[in-house]
Amino acid sequence: MSEENEKILFELSDELISQVEQLIVEKNDKELHHLLDDFHYADIAEILDELDLEDAIYIIKLLDSETTSDILTELDEDIREKVLKNLSAKEIAEEIEELDTDDAADMIAELPEDRQKAVISQIEDEEHKAEIQELLAYDEDTAGGLMAKELVKVYETWTVAGCMRRIRGQAKDVTRVHSIYVVNKEEKLIGRLSLKDLITAKSEQKIAEISNANVDSVNVNDDVEDVAKVMQKYDLEAIPVVDDNQVLLGRITIDDIVDVMKEEAEKDYQLAAGITSDVEHDDSIFQLTRARLPWLFLGLLGGVGAFLIMEGFQESFSKYAVLFFFTPLIAAMAGNVGVQSSAIIVQGLANDDVKGSINSRLLKEMFLAALNGFILAIFLFLFVWATKGDMNTALAISISLVAVIIVAGLIGTFVPLFLDKRGIDPAIATGPFITTSNDIFGILIYFWIAKMILGI
Amino acid sequence: MSEENEKILFELSDELISQVEQLIVEKNDKELHHLLDDFHYADIAEILDELDLEDAIYIIKLLDSETTSDILTELDEDIREKVLKNLSAKEIAEEIEELDTDDAADMIAELPEDRQKAVISQIEDEEHKAEIQELLAYDEDTAGGLMAKELVKVYETWTVAGCMRRIRGQAKDVTRVHSIYVVNKEEKLIGRLSLKDLITAKSEQKIAEISNANVDSVNVNDDVEDVAKVMQKYDLEAIPVVDDNQVLLGRITIDDIVDVMKEEAEKDYQLAAGITSDVEHDDSIFQLTRARLPWLFLGLLGGVGAFLIMEGFQESFSKYAVLFFFTPLIAAMAGNVGVQSSAIIVQGLANDDVKGSINSRLLKEMFLAALNGFILAIFLFLFVWATKGDMNTALAISISLVAVIIVAGLIGTFVPLFLDKRGIDPAIATGPFITTSNDIFGILIYFWIAKMILGI
Repeated sequence: MSEENEKILFELSDELISQVEQLIVEKNDKELHHLLDDFHYADIAEILDELDLEDAIYIIKLLDSETTSDILTELDEDIREKVLKNLSAKEIAEEIEELDTDDAADMIAELPEDRQKAVISQIEDEEHKAEIQELLAYDEDTAGGLMAKELVKVYETWTVAGCMRRIRGQAKDVTRVHSIYVVNKEEKLIGRLSLKDLITAKSEQKIAEISNANVDSVNVNDDVEDVAKVMQKYDLEAIPVVDDNQVLLGRITIDDIVDVMKEEAEKDYQLAAGITSDVEHDDSIFQLTRARLPWLFLGLLGGVGAFLIMEGFQESFSKYAVLFFFTPLIAAMAGNVGVQSSAIIVQGLANDDVKGSINSRLLKEMFLAALNGFILAIFLFLFVWATKGDMNTALAISISLVAVIIVAGLIGTFVPLFLDKRGIDPAIATGPFITTSNDIFGILIYFWIAKMILGI
Repeated sequence: MSEENEKILFELSDELISQVEQLIVEKNDKELHHLLDDFHYADIAEILDELDLEDAIYIIKLLDSETTSDILTELDEDIREKVLKNLSAKEIAEEIEELDTDDAADMIAELPEDRQKAVISQIEDEEHKAEIQELLAYDEDTAGGLMAKELVKVYETWTVAGCMRRIRGQAKDVTRVHSIYVVNKEEKLIGRLSLKDLITAKSEQKIAEISNANVDSVNVNDDVEDVAKVMQKYDLEAIPVVDDNQVLLGRITIDDIVDVMKEEAEKDYQLAAGITSDVEHDDSIFQLTRARLPWLFLGLLGGVGAFLIMEGFQESFSKYAVLFFFTPLIAAMAGNVGVQSSAIIVQGLANDDVKGSINSRLLKEMFLAALNGFILAIFLFLFVWATKGDMNTALAISISLVAVIIVAGLIGTFVPLFLDKRGIDPAIATGPFITTSNDIFGILIYFWIAKMILGI
């Protein structure tokens, strides 16, 4: 067991880092090669993320560009930026030559604008250069920004035998052949076939006879999140990208979609936790502050609002000071219920499975909130009655709690639906936004209802 | 544009549903075939999710089992359960025959135990039956529970030509050929090659000569989340599964991993929002209540705790009633900061990139919290001073706020790290758990410090 477990996940150890650092000090290139050549480039990138900048650059200059280009794509973004700063335009261009067009374009896009031009001008392979420049023109959130130009394309008029010959040539540039795309003489996508189809066909057959006309594709301007949904729903491992005239432009593979999905999930999770912009725990204090402070400030404003409401009711409830001691409870319940309701809706919207009318949804949420509220209110009623011995106060607090929970549930359901209709990412609704507004509404409703019940 | 957009996402319309329902009433099977045969099985599953049970069963019985087996795997779990209840063991077995072993085992595992046996006994293909029974024995959270038996396997001693011949046979059962796995005569995995390698090799070459010995694999008992990490990190589209003796047992494909990742992300998101167990917005009110109520009850206890604390300080602060009006603000800030800190750590832990010592992490979080707290405290100080005109009160509230925020940040950082060390999913720390404990700690610290500063 332990052997397999070691194998499954590469473990970055302090010993390994020290060993690499020591070998760099000794300039023992042979031993470094010997040590690192066994590792996957993604593992070497993890090692480099932990080294000093000079040491990382030493390794990048030591290994051949076929490996280092892949390592660079896997490096932490901040580290990559620093490493690339220390390489000449010529050296970066050499790395770019080794990369697939999608990774190449992504790496160039991260460079400052003047460097971009310098690097592009140093790329020797004219076709690679033109393809990268094409990709750089697309918005990064569209299919065009995600696709690679590398694909295997055959014409419908070819024979299987001719096709096999040509594919041997094209496939060298394509890391993984998922599908072979069939185009007509206008370069329009008209079908697909798999290597399996090709192997099992007779060599004199025409491509048109064995290709499958039922080929999914996405438009170059489609949103990457929509592309992710299509590939996931239909279990696709690659999807061709076409322009408005159905001309084949590139293809997107599932590994890029996996990255998109992961980023999207992390962004939503962070938004729900009150963190804007994509930060990681090892970002600088300044970056982390900038991502968190706006939401905290919103919370501060909410707290000030709650303060003003309580002050406004101070006179009325001078005899019922105990009511004020329950405001944190009311605020917490309103916030929690709101977050729960909004989270369910936000997830439903993300999965495109929120069907039916808004009214029936609000009605269901109202029932649910009323049920939860009622159960919780019984406990609260018994607690207040037992400790304070005043049934009126206990009733006022408990009935208010039910009302607050129902309203909180409705707000939590309505706000994301409303934002979504307006074309705003509903994910911002789960978290501080809903918590803060529910705090204020909750406390206001609580005092109103308590006032009515106690007849003040 | 609009044409492409229509194509990219199948849109379920009320018109389409009515059309299908009407055709079922008319028993117009020909027209139903004509309409549905154009749709992808995942789209037909969406239609069936919206139909009445009898109508859904009508469609399942109408279409051929090659299509309906795939439709069944895509149906909403509740609907599938109901549909399967209305099919005989024989009918289910016919659907199972059409499925890959992994989907077949998953579908059987959902059936009640006595039906499982009845269905399995009706499977005619003995090999398929044995493979499904093998898969049913693995824990669903392990590689074994996720893998399929379908794969393309060749022996190292074969020639390329012989291999091509055999593959034509094996590949028929395998939807997608990612890699061809090379085994020795003990069935141990010793390498891999791609169809591309095979096509570009000479027909008299031995497999051993052209295969790549550097093959990643996972153990059948490995946790699916670890498998997901490996496949994601190394951009793999399929990974072979072996036993402790390196004997090849099956393979896992990326589309299954995509589903695992999605479920994991949704579960974490729900936990952060205070929802346990995997629920969807269209689950029953009872299911939704059971998922939400425990966390709300925790919040209620927290609120009662806050009440007791405030009551305890009632005497001391009789002259400073204004302090009580800021408790919702203090509680909200403590909760928000705690959630922010814990979310970052939970994500870091999920990505395996929380390195370095706990102490340095706590120190960083303390600086960050102090910085945020200081900025927010200045605003609060100015507000209280301006509205109340009492600098002492303003100072007491503001300084407490900074302390509360620092402690909240430390708790938010420490709790998930602690849970993780103990082998508990740290994701439960983000959300009501941290909010509630921080509410109580926050209010307690607030009154303590205010008491010291005001010298009561």
